[in-house]
Amino acid sequence: MSVQIAGNGILHRRMLLKAAGATAAASFLMPVKASEAWMTHTGEPPGEYGSPSEFAHLKREQTGGHPFGAEAGSSSSPLQNLNGTITPNSLHFERHHSGIPNIDPIKHRLAVYGDVRQPLQFSYEDLLAYPMETHVYFLECSGNSYRNTLTNPLDLTAGSLNGLISGAEWTGIPLHYLLDEAGIQNREGWVIAEGADAAGLTRSIPLSMALDKVMVAMYQNGEPLRPAQGYPIRLFVPGCEGNISIKWLQALKVQKTPAYTRDETSKYTDTLKDGRSEMFSLKMEVKSVITSPSGKMKLNRQGVYEINGIAWSGSGSIKRVEVSADGGKSWAEAVIQSESGSLALARFRIPWRWSGQRAVLQSRAIDTGGNVQPTRDAALERYSPAGFYHYNGMQSWQVSGSGDVKNVFV
Amino acid sequence: MSVQIAGNGILHRRMLLKAAGATAAASFLMPVKASEAWMTHTGEPPGEYGSPSEFAHLKREQTGGHPFGAEAGSSSSPLQNLNGTITPNSLHFERHHSGIPNIDPIKHRLAVYGDVRQPLQFSYEDLLAYPMETHVYFLECSGNSYRNTLTNPLDLTAGSLNGLISGAEWTGIPLHYLLDEAGIQNREGWVIAEGADAAGLTRSIPLSMALDKVMVAMYQNGEPLRPAQGYPIRLFVPGCEGNISIKWLQALKVQKTPAYTRDETSKYTDTLKDGRSEMFSLKMEVKSVITSPSGKMKLNRQGVYEINGIAWSGSGSIKRVEVSADGGKSWAEAVIQSESGSLALARFRIPWRWSGQRAVLQSRAIDTGGNVQPTRDAALERYSPAGFYHYNGMQSWQVSGSGDVKNVFV
Repeated sequence: MSVQIAGNGILHRRMLLKAAGATAAASFLMPVKASEAWMTHTGEPPGEYGSPSEFAHLKREQTGGHPFGAEAGSSSSPLQNLNGTITPNSLHFERHHSGIPNIDPIKHRLAVYGDVRQPLQFSYEDLLAYPMETHVYFLECSGNSYRNTLTNPLDLTAGSLNGLISGAEWTGIPLHYLLDEAGIQNREGWVIAEGADAAGLTRSIPLSMALDKVMVAMYQNGEPLRPAQGYPIRLFVPGCEGNISIKWLQALKVQKTPAYTRDETSKYTDTLKDGRSEMFSLKMEVKSVITSPSGKMKLNRQGVYEINGIAWSGSGSIKRVEVSADGGKSWAEAVIQSESGSLALARFRIPWRWSGQRAVLQSRAIDTGGNVQPTRDAALERYSPAGFYHYNGMQSWQVSGSGDVKNVFV
Repeated sequence: MSVQIAGNGILHRRMLLKAAGATAAASFLMPVKASEAWMTHTGEPPGEYGSPSEFAHLKREQTGGHPFGAEAGSSSSPLQNLNGTITPNSLHFERHHSGIPNIDPIKHRLAVYGDVRQPLQFSYEDLLAYPMETHVYFLECSGNSYRNTLTNPLDLTAGSLNGLISGAEWTGIPLHYLLDEAGIQNREGWVIAEGADAAGLTRSIPLSMALDKVMVAMYQNGEPLRPAQGYPIRLFVPGCEGNISIKWLQALKVQKTPAYTRDETSKYTDTLKDGRSEMFSLKMEVKSVITSPSGKMKLNRQGVYEINGIAWSGSGSIKRVEVSADGGKSWAEAVIQSESGSLALARFRIPWRWSGQRAVLQSRAIDTGGNVQPTRDAALERYSPAGFYHYNGMQSWQVSGSGDVKNVFV
């Protein structure tokens, strides 16, 4: 009943049901007897604050530090352990420039000043009374997947290679409310946003962008922001590289030109192949990663599996994701979770029958703007070999004859 | 500029921007000086697993126990601390009948048997290979808000009164895949679902419902289920009373009739005013609660506030939420977050100018099926005074002249 529609076992997305029937489920005699401790003894009572199962082994990856010190490092979402389109706050990726400040919101202020009619200062309590909006958005570090720009493929998990991407529901105040209240004089200028961390991370954002979807975020997945995500408030610039969504936001200065801050000259400028540099290349590219099966996993039997993963684009919504099991020779269209919105993670799924032969699994995303995720070679072509920001080449996972899955460059 | 469209200061929902301008923001001199420790000292490095700010004071409420013991108790989402439409997993409400089992997924099995062509048994690893779907749904305990059925209003928070409701993104296997694989003989029958906790909680679900949107859930908000939410697997029956979404699911028996188990005769049967009883009244009602301002909060100044809250219905989507500031004499339509889906929490918002006078804030939700949330009196009318399930009367918050907010019955 399973219809192969691309090479090496890719089945039609509508064959999910019948494909499922092909997995090996043992027949058995009923009923279950209460034999395990959890069926014979009362468990723990409900608590004030929950935690995951010890058996789920959930933790962020690549927390090992950074040449400048662990406080300038990052931690990656363990993509291979996750499903759906939301990343729980405890597993959302992090990237800091001088560690995580532990800010008392009572002492925190947000200033709006510069080319405005009336400079304003807001306390956390002031901001809580403002009208808010709620949207699901992805956030990606501009350095995500940089390990795949190196010369040799590293044998790591999907999270360790590509986990500087997460998705969450963000709630905050549309920034135009605050800018309009201060009275911006010129809608063609820039906003310079500064964090209250010890690094004082500061970046310039075109006003045209700042007046559009940008918010001062106060809640993430329903609860107040975590310190690692900017508590008490952060800027949130949907679809753009993570560092511009300034955490621990304390100042917004309106001016005619960008500030060319240390953070946007020493970093976050992209050197191109021809030696020129691109600044304020803020939008993240169209991209996807298969998260299951993925690196370091092992397939223990032949038969049908669901291939699934995440896709996103800074230019809008994901229109289509195609999947290949033969290293890009043939492709089939996956199902995309219908509830995924613009600038949010989409989850794609397609059934695949593994015959026990070597296979190379790839996905490529196409967004509503018509942008197509490039191969690794094509993605590398654009930038200087020294560059590692904004890499969006396809991730290739090789399944060996023994079922071991690993990162390969094809 | 703010247009009042209902009594006692309710402003038009499109006046959010101008209303915002009316809040008290102090002018000030720039720039901010680095004076606090978090601006002068490096913070904590990124970690493997995140946690909230100590300053946010996030914890579930009403964890005090139950006449049968703490393990048969519940814990409530602190609604007044939350915003958006997702509840983080650590703050999702809980209700257990014999505590939280700590199940090793390697030892867990799901049996499908009874009136089927071939009984089947699935390991956790088997199930992980199945095709899944992802949807955002609310979950509500049938006993939610029962404190408001008592004779006198309790002076408690929104979470303590109404917090047995949460929202999450659930990912799992559509149940019809597993039932069809076992081969159900008769689509008119029932499925009896049993948990692997010490209570062996067991409930009967009409097959017509089980074959529709029901899933075997494996992930909540992206990560594997927590033990308190059914790890490794739970049934999820969207829109229905929480207890039927059997946690720690170990068996599904197909048969012609309901099982009339202990859990559906001693509990979860609704006694009506005329003495008759309603069984298998599974769908939850249309309902809403204002979460800010709400019980135990204090308004520290006059001026504009955003009134916001959550709304939901077991019969579909929320079509409209109306808000009153004069105890129901006049009403105005709130904004509903556009991304809210069917059987999910919706967040509603409307601006309100508090003049320093006594006010009574209420919300009433209307769903796409035309169901209107009743007043408290009308909601109580239907059931026996001894009943406390499925209460969906309006929540009324009184704001006193001094700004104190408390639960009242009007």
